[in-house]
Amino acid sequence: MKLVKNSAGRMVPTQINGEKQIPFMGVGKYVPKGKTTGTPIRSCSEFPADGNKLVKSVKEALIKSGVKDGMTISTHHHLRNGDVVTNMLFDIIHEMGIKNIRWFPSASFPIHSHLIPYLEDGTISRIEGSMNGPLGRFTSEGKMKGIGVLRSHGGRYQAIQDGEVHIDIAVIAAPTADSFGNATGDRGPSACGLLGFALADSEYADKVIIVTDNLVPFPCYPWQIQGNNVDYVVQIDSLGDTTKIVSGTTEVTKSPDRLLIAEYVAKFMEESEIMHDGFSFQAGAGGTNLAFALFLKERMKAKGIKARFIRGGSTKYLVQMLEEGLTDYILDGQTFDLEGVRSMRENANHVNTSPFTSYNYHGKGNFASILDAVVLGATEVDVKFNANVVTHSDGYLLHGIGGWQNCLFSKCTILAIPSFRDRIPVIVDQVTTLVGPGELIDVIVTERGIAINPLRKDLLRKIKNSSLPIRKIEDIYNEVNEICGGTPQKPKFDKSKVVAVVKWVDGTVLDSIFKIKV
Amino acid sequence: MKLVKNSAGRMVPTQINGEKQIPFMGVGKYVPKGKTTGTPIRSCSEFPADGNKLVKSVKEALIKSGVKDGMTISTHHHLRNGDVVTNMLFDIIHEMGIKNIRWFPSASFPIHSHLIPYLEDGTISRIEGSMNGPLGRFTSEGKMKGIGVLRSHGGRYQAIQDGEVHIDIAVIAAPTADSFGNATGDRGPSACGLLGFALADSEYADKVIIVTDNLVPFPCYPWQIQGNNVDYVVQIDSLGDTTKIVSGTTEVTKSPDRLLIAEYVAKFMEESEIMHDGFSFQAGAGGTNLAFALFLKERMKAKGIKARFIRGGSTKYLVQMLEEGLTDYILDGQTFDLEGVRSMRENANHVNTSPFTSYNYHGKGNFASILDAVVLGATEVDVKFNANVVTHSDGYLLHGIGGWQNCLFSKCTILAIPSFRDRIPVIVDQVTTLVGPGELIDVIVTERGIAINPLRKDLLRKIKNSSLPIRKIEDIYNEVNEICGGTPQKPKFDKSKVVAVVKWVDGTVLDSIFKIKV
Repeated sequence: MKLVKNSAGRMVPTQINGEKQIPFMGVGKYVPKGKTTGTPIRSCSEFPADGNKLVKSVKEALIKSGVKDGMTISTHHHLRNGDVVTNMLFDIIHEMGIKNIRWFPSASFPIHSHLIPYLEDGTISRIEGSMNGPLGRFTSEGKMKGIGVLRSHGGRYQAIQDGEVHIDIAVIAAPTADSFGNATGDRGPSACGLLGFALADSEYADKVIIVTDNLVPFPCYPWQIQGNNVDYVVQIDSLGDTTKIVSGTTEVTKSPDRLLIAEYVAKFMEESEIMHDGFSFQAGAGGTNLAFALFLKERMKAKGIKARFIRGGSTKYLVQMLEEGLTDYILDGQTFDLEGVRSMRENANHVNTSPFTSYNYHGKGNFASILDAVVLGATEVDVKFNANVVTHSDGYLLHGIGGWQNCLFSKCTILAIPSFRDRIPVIVDQVTTLVGPGELIDVIVTERGIAINPLRKDLLRKIKNSSLPIRKIEDIYNEVNEICGGTPQKPKFDKSKVVAVVKWVDGTVLDSIFKIKV
Repeated sequence: MKLVKNSAGRMVPTQINGEKQIPFMGVGKYVPKGKTTGTPIRSCSEFPADGNKLVKSVKEALIKSGVKDGMTISTHHHLRNGDVVTNMLFDIIHEMGIKNIRWFPSASFPIHSHLIPYLEDGTISRIEGSMNGPLGRFTSEGKMKGIGVLRSHGGRYQAIQDGEVHIDIAVIAAPTADSFGNATGDRGPSACGLLGFALADSEYADKVIIVTDNLVPFPCYPWQIQGNNVDYVVQIDSLGDTTKIVSGTTEVTKSPDRLLIAEYVAKFMEESEIMHDGFSFQAGAGGTNLAFALFLKERMKAKGIKARFIRGGSTKYLVQMLEEGLTDYILDGQTFDLEGVRSMRENANHVNTSPFTSYNYHGKGNFASILDAVVLGATEVDVKFNANVVTHSDGYLLHGIGGWQNCLFSKCTILAIPSFRDRIPVIVDQVTTLVGPGELIDVIVTERGIAINPLRKDLLRKIKNSSLPIRKIEDIYNEVNEICGGTPQKPKFDKSKVVAVVKWVDGTVLDSIFKIKV
């Protein structure tokens, strides 16, 4: 395998899984050519005139879709760790003796460790999509046949739209659907909120199969997935374990350090005047982020400030802000708890968005760059503000990228992170895997102080007289090293064996993940 | 120009405006090949990071879009006869000295007779889209340089999607929009309801320009048109004459004959058991259709029957049915009055649809064929149930197709028509122009009786014991001829000169419209 050094100084393969790759050229530097891909032109004469596309089983739908060796089959991750559809799907594919499938999920969860035997026996050749937990470990140990490809949510849309990934069959688990294939995630016994991660699949896959446990008479409305893109509909008993689809219990952190970080972030947003009337922000569902949202809310109320919109991952805390009039809209990419699902169903201002609207870098702009601020996490940050979210300092691939890369384009990207975890520094000399270029990361907030990217002279000016502990990142780095007794030991990689690559939002290859030497 | 006889026995050109054509092959017979078209892959790096795509004027937006001779420029018709944007657009194009534009509107209205000088001086070479009233007369007299192409709403989506018509620049008048290009028609001083007819344009045009008179802060929601598809946004003072955008006064017919027809249709739907719990129907906004809706409503109430959905063109009468609980949903393609606009804005069950969902024949099914019944009009019907909606018996092209062809795929297609108008029979031996093949037309309801297509033995059985005046179409034809003093005189055509063609829903050529000999 030939590796070249890309513009970020990372060694990346020029070809993976038999396909030519473009090495990362710098943020905004790669200019795409050509046209977005199309789908086979269909005719209504080939579809039931009464709109009823029901078939008896997933197996029948797969057969009618022409399933065969070597195909790309996609699924979405809105059912999270409660998903039984994907596992059932591959049980059937395995039973049919189909081999060499490229599984193209929008993300995977620990429940999908069920698929490890299928990765071992050649049913699945490789995963393109996040390989969280056990699947990541399996990949890091060099056990996957093909090379994994990690993309952001926006990068996944881009890859499908641009024709880099051709989906043969999309299997879309839908909490509510009609027999025409209109589907929604905001209601039904397995409600998960929305289905935005399956949008590109529904639009671009050759064949689209809806699997539902809640069939309603036409029309199923809202139609987050449009039946006009659907080939077959299958009714099954249950999409999964509803307690694991949405947690119902997203809890604010109780750690004093994390609470301090959250408070720093909120205060920083006030002092930097990012928090102003009509502003916008995004924060995820981790315990620190939830605490940040609560601290910010208090500051907004105290100053009589209202946001124009908040981007979710929604939780009950964001829903409360919407219902209390502290924001005009929630623009939601996924609902993290039951209150988020309810609000999306009931409140017209809790809006269903998708990777197309929010994150696709090969579009005419997207929502991510419009945001005034985003608060994110990271597994590692280096002194040049480069960050990592997929591997740990021990070299293991354990997380997907999610929307993280896409969010870096906001006007102010804040990483809210502890300076160390389990006595392993989070601020390091060089990240194990480069996932976010430092030039896009503006502020690092730790319990030991706040580091502002020197590129952001405007922000440094704004908070010149702040009472916040603004420090140089090198200072925090040195202090943490001292506490932890030095930088973490570098993992031992087999640098001749790339097990996965990290794509940038434009489809170029940003970094490689190598096999762990055990 | 070479003409061939297509499967309907009509003489059609094999090439028009330099492009090869496929003659009509029969309903459901043409099998499309290839893939849907794409658009140039764009990059967020080329668009303003803050999402603000405002430019100062329509002219500036056109220049930035690279406007030049020979381009295809599209507009939509949601502003109906109140539209000033299209006229202004072509004033600017004319002033810039641009020539030979193909104008590709979703429909045209009498107000667009303003464009006749531009058709004469070569600014516009031809219209592909309905040529109502004055523009139709102009075309029929052989004055347009190119050949006109008439498509149904669904056929227009199909032609764009399949790459038959490549739109260089789409200009979308939007009653409300944000600077990112998200746009909606359901609010603002020029509210028109929805913008579904511009959906394909926004998705497939190389460049998309939003023109609005009501700019709101991001996000404009609902986003009937998505900003992610938009290149430029222009703010102007007014989109047009609001009294002509939506009438505010759609009135039920007072003619005793038309009322009788409307009552026959309602009674037929009850007796044939089309009116059953959970049924669906579509009826337009003409006076007869409105009366029909009122008669049907009374019958539904009397029997305690509720529809699952009604397809609009919505009016206050359909809105009342929704609000009184006589239907679960209105699936709306355009709003015909202010009550329709209000309801769409306020009622989540008054749903915004598009030619993609409802009418596109080159999709995986569409809504039109799911409908239990549709009630339509026609300018002529012949004794084989073939119908015409674009020309009159004098040969003049005076109307567009609208959704009429697409609606023919419903489970029961009913034409509610007077048997003659101004002493000219509507039921004729052969239609002047074939727009709808008789095999898809099931029932003709006139004030002199109801004719059922002999192909529909099931319907004939259902109403065997009806008190309705069920008659053979030939009987009604003969009676009407006697009253009117014979069949109408055939128009004098120059059969060597095709001025426009009628496309079928699959893109094949169904019939030709010839130059009138004056």
